[in-house]
Amino acid sequence: MPRFALLIEYDGGPFAGWQAQADRPSVQGAVEAALGRLDPGFAAGARIAAAGRTDAGVHATGQVAHADLQRDWDPFRLSEALNWHLKPAPVAILAAARVADDFHARFSAHERRYLFRLVSRRAPLTHDRGRAWQVAHPLDLAAMRAGAAHLLGRHDFTTFRSTMCQAKSPVKTLDQLTIEEARIPQGREYRFTLRARSFLHNQVRSIVGTLERVGAGAWPPGRVAEALAACDRAACGPVCPSQGLYLTGVGYEPPPFPEGPLN
Amino acid sequence: MPRFALLIEYDGGPFAGWQAQADRPSVQGAVEAALGRLDPGFAAGARIAAAGRTDAGVHATGQVAHADLQRDWDPFRLSEALNWHLKPAPVAILAAARVADDFHARFSAHERRYLFRLVSRRAPLTHDRGRAWQVAHPLDLAAMRAGAAHLLGRHDFTTFRSTMCQAKSPVKTLDQLTIEEARIPQGREYRFTLRARSFLHNQVRSIVGTLERVGAGAWPPGRVAEALAACDRAACGPVCPSQGLYLTGVGYEPPPFPEGPLN
Repeated sequence: MPRFALLIEYDGGPFAGWQAQADRPSVQGAVEAALGRLDPGFAAGARIAAAGRTDAGVHATGQVAHADLQRDWDPFRLSEALNWHLKPAPVAILAAARVADDFHARFSAHERRYLFRLVSRRAPLTHDRGRAWQVAHPLDLAAMRAGAAHLLGRHDFTTFRSTMCQAKSPVKTLDQLTIEEARIPQGREYRFTLRARSFLHNQVRSIVGTLERVGAGAWPPGRVAEALAACDRAACGPVCPSQGLYLTGVGYEPPPFPEGPLN
Repeated sequence: MPRFALLIEYDGGPFAGWQAQADRPSVQGAVEAALGRLDPGFAAGARIAAAGRTDAGVHATGQVAHADLQRDWDPFRLSEALNWHLKPAPVAILAAARVADDFHARFSAHERRYLFRLVSRRAPLTHDRGRAWQVAHPLDLAAMRAGAAHLLGRHDFTTFRSTMCQAKSPVKTLDQLTIEEARIPQGREYRFTLRARSFLHNQVRSIVGTLERVGAGAWPPGRVAEALAACDRAACGPVCPSQGLYLTGVGYEPPPFPEGPLN
């Protein structure tokens, strides 16, 4: 059966997460239901696999999943048909591509990229409600960057890992952890970009929640190094809310999605 | 009575526009209802005046209104109290300031700034649904910029004015009309920035709708000059939808809102 990779964007707000669940709406369930309108295998219960099983409320602009279909679809027509059947759910197939039979959205991925949006201002969010984490106090960018520097590279991230995490090893290599500041009306937005081969469960939210404590002045930046060295979940700062988190991209070799006229 | 200026952000989606209407939700009505929880005058039906009476679906990140209150509020406490009473409507008071008795949000304004977000991609929008105008074809940035150049400066904008427009004169001076392009996943976003002392009704949406036709290749850029010279509403391109339009700022001398720690 021909295998297709799907590049997927979604607003995580209405969903109980990526993973299909019996009685709650999931992104996986929405995509599989749309596939079921096109393909007998999915109508009969076939499943898709994704690069990152995002938690409830987490968004994506670059999730990747793969599906085995019974027909050899034209990739453009496949994405258009899926978007038609996905309406009105806030889930969109940005691109589809025919891939090799040994391509696996999760196991072939050599890099995941996440964005976390943290907003600092007094007034409640309007347009970005549910799309960023808001705090009402100022944050010190230089302090957050100094704290972040301790986390870059290969470490035992036990401190920054959910107790529910099923990964075999807590050792991961964080290839990027940068923070950019932007002015917004009467406030500031801090955009955290994280890049690694793979992440532990709740690792991004544990890191951002800890760095927010540094930015607020509650933690000196050096305490991040101590927390990391402790290899103890209890040493972590508070895990921050999910609504600021976006899975922005997944890396494969070769990249499955060709550039189109609008790329 | 002390006069206060309010800096207001809102998601225009749920509202029939800025202006209060008897039986439909309006931004003005939401702010006046919140003021009515704090001030006997507004509880008895006092009104606020705004710099720009935005249409249904139009957003703001920098609307300004003024209100006369019976008590001399601390501006910070006033904005906090209003935000408390505005919940859960997507309207936020970004700042409040005590202003002179002759300050008028509409008549003292010497500049209005608008942003229009136009997205070009095939897949439906998810996070930006209702927050940008989407077309499914590519757009030519250089052509749109060439078309826009004809509109800069002082002109009779009759062509780009709603037949409902109540302004005394169709002559306006457009001080800025710039277009920036940004990559988004599998598409492009075009951000139009417009700046003038004041605008005619539907002027921004008439201009962007016309320039989109140029970007799509349906109009040569020179036809924008011909349309302007015609001084004829029938020569205008299609008026584009409201959901991409944002009132981003209003200029006063002196600026009423002081910079705070989060500014």
